[in-house]
Amino acid sequence: MCDACVMSAVKSRMLSRRDMFRLAAGASVAAAVTATSGAIPAMAAIPTKVSDLTHELSESFPTFFGQQQFFATKLFDYAKDKFNLYELRVNEHTGTHVDAPLHFSADGQSVAEIPVGNLVAPLAVVDIRARAVENPDTQLTPDDLKAWIAAHGPIPEGACVAMLSGWDKHVASPKFRNPDDKGGMHFPGFHVEAAAMLIEEAKVVGIAVDTLSLDFGASPDFATHYKWLPSNRWGIECIANLEQLPPTGATLVVGAPKHKGGTGGPARVLALV
Amino acid sequence: MCDACVMSAVKSRMLSRRDMFRLAAGASVAAAVTATSGAIPAMAAIPTKVSDLTHELSESFPTFFGQQQFFATKLFDYAKDKFNLYELRVNEHTGTHVDAPLHFSADGQSVAEIPVGNLVAPLAVVDIRARAVENPDTQLTPDDLKAWIAAHGPIPEGACVAMLSGWDKHVASPKFRNPDDKGGMHFPGFHVEAAAMLIEEAKVVGIAVDTLSLDFGASPDFATHYKWLPSNRWGIECIANLEQLPPTGATLVVGAPKHKGGTGGPARVLALV
Repeated sequence: MCDACVMSAVKSRMLSRRDMFRLAAGASVAAAVTATSGAIPAMAAIPTKVSDLTHELSESFPTFFGQQQFFATKLFDYAKDKFNLYELRVNEHTGTHVDAPLHFSADGQSVAEIPVGNLVAPLAVVDIRARAVENPDTQLTPDDLKAWIAAHGPIPEGACVAMLSGWDKHVASPKFRNPDDKGGMHFPGFHVEAAAMLIEEAKVVGIAVDTLSLDFGASPDFATHYKWLPSNRWGIECIANLEQLPPTGATLVVGAPKHKGGTGGPARVLALV
Repeated sequence: MCDACVMSAVKSRMLSRRDMFRLAAGASVAAAVTATSGAIPAMAAIPTKVSDLTHELSESFPTFFGQQQFFATKLFDYAKDKFNLYELRVNEHTGTHVDAPLHFSADGQSVAEIPVGNLVAPLAVVDIRARAVENPDTQLTPDDLKAWIAAHGPIPEGACVAMLSGWDKHVASPKFRNPDDKGGMHFPGFHVEAAAMLIEEAKVVGIAVDTLSLDFGASPDFATHYKWLPSNRWGIECIANLEQLPPTGATLVVGAPKHKGGTGGPARVLALV
């Protein structure tokens, strides 16, 4: 979708009454107060390994809008100055990054306001790779969640549900954005009804995708963003290496940035297993 | 110390032969290959709590050089655009942040090259608060490390040793930089001989301070930076809330940024207890 189309679609979208109710409900679920410590969901065992679910960020990292969003300027150089230092310029929604509730709401939690206990989450990995190979416009649906629950039991309280579409392996090729000849993009994402099911039926704090957007690339309206983020739950986009993890049993640790009023930002995302 | 004095001190500093040897040795200790997973040191128990050791970053956050180093520009606003988004500009060494080995070496690990297993570390908290109240120029010394070891046993393999000086509580006041009338700063740091002891006697991957610099504020020469970072070990500056943690038993998770070739950067630093 072209930039202008995206903007148009976004601007035409308004929060419904039902969304507003969810916003209020989510706020109480997630706790409104920003504290410097918090309880974390139970881990099944002492972890012995860490997986890095973070892509390396560089000036050529692909972006939703198709323009460069990360820039590094060397201010000091070791050969001359005896130390190295860069100044960075970055759009918050670049690389492996967090979408804070504030990204798609008027007054949801900023990235600095996400309760710290919600940054450590049991990880449920939903594998839709086989379907994604066949159809880049596929979405993670309520049926996928039901199949996961049938195989692995209830989604743990405080979990992050992650979509493993295999799309992270395309990060260095045009297929990551997968544009058609009209500028529309084609990659998998969360179906809005899957987001709705997680809000209604499970105490889930976040969702993650290995693609550029919580919504599938062909989405005309950011329906999943508008369903999920205003409920004061977070998202992660461009997560990597989910195939290293079991469907259940890993613990996600989200190294979200903590800048005041931020709508998200590049994050170091790790999983303890 | 004024900017010009700092630059002068830095430029006059050269790596010694001994430092170069350490660089090579540290590189092998820390593993040269960047893998997407790694073993982590043993935790004593399943953690049940997380502490946030990260200051909120804002445009007024104090800096070593005394100038503003974080800037946020709102590119999209919910009232008009139906979503919020900022572009950020930030000096890598701002807020609670990581110093990668490359910050003070010609070819040490960039922040993206730190082995992921080294980002999860048993935390040894060395409390020098009583002395710091009396003397802002105090340093964490080998005697402090020996006293910690006598009380708590050997420093765990793969640990981060953190200086708790209590200085994080001054972050919103001029005392955080604590300048004198000549522009010199006065806050605690790691003594270079403590850094040397940790390199020689313990398998420590990182050190952390709750002040603006690994070196104490009055340092004329960044001796600790030049001892520690070229050994391919990392540092954290401006860590917060260490007083929430036990002297031993917590596990640090360093949400270091992962930009290609970076010398460090703002990080989300968490501790599991």
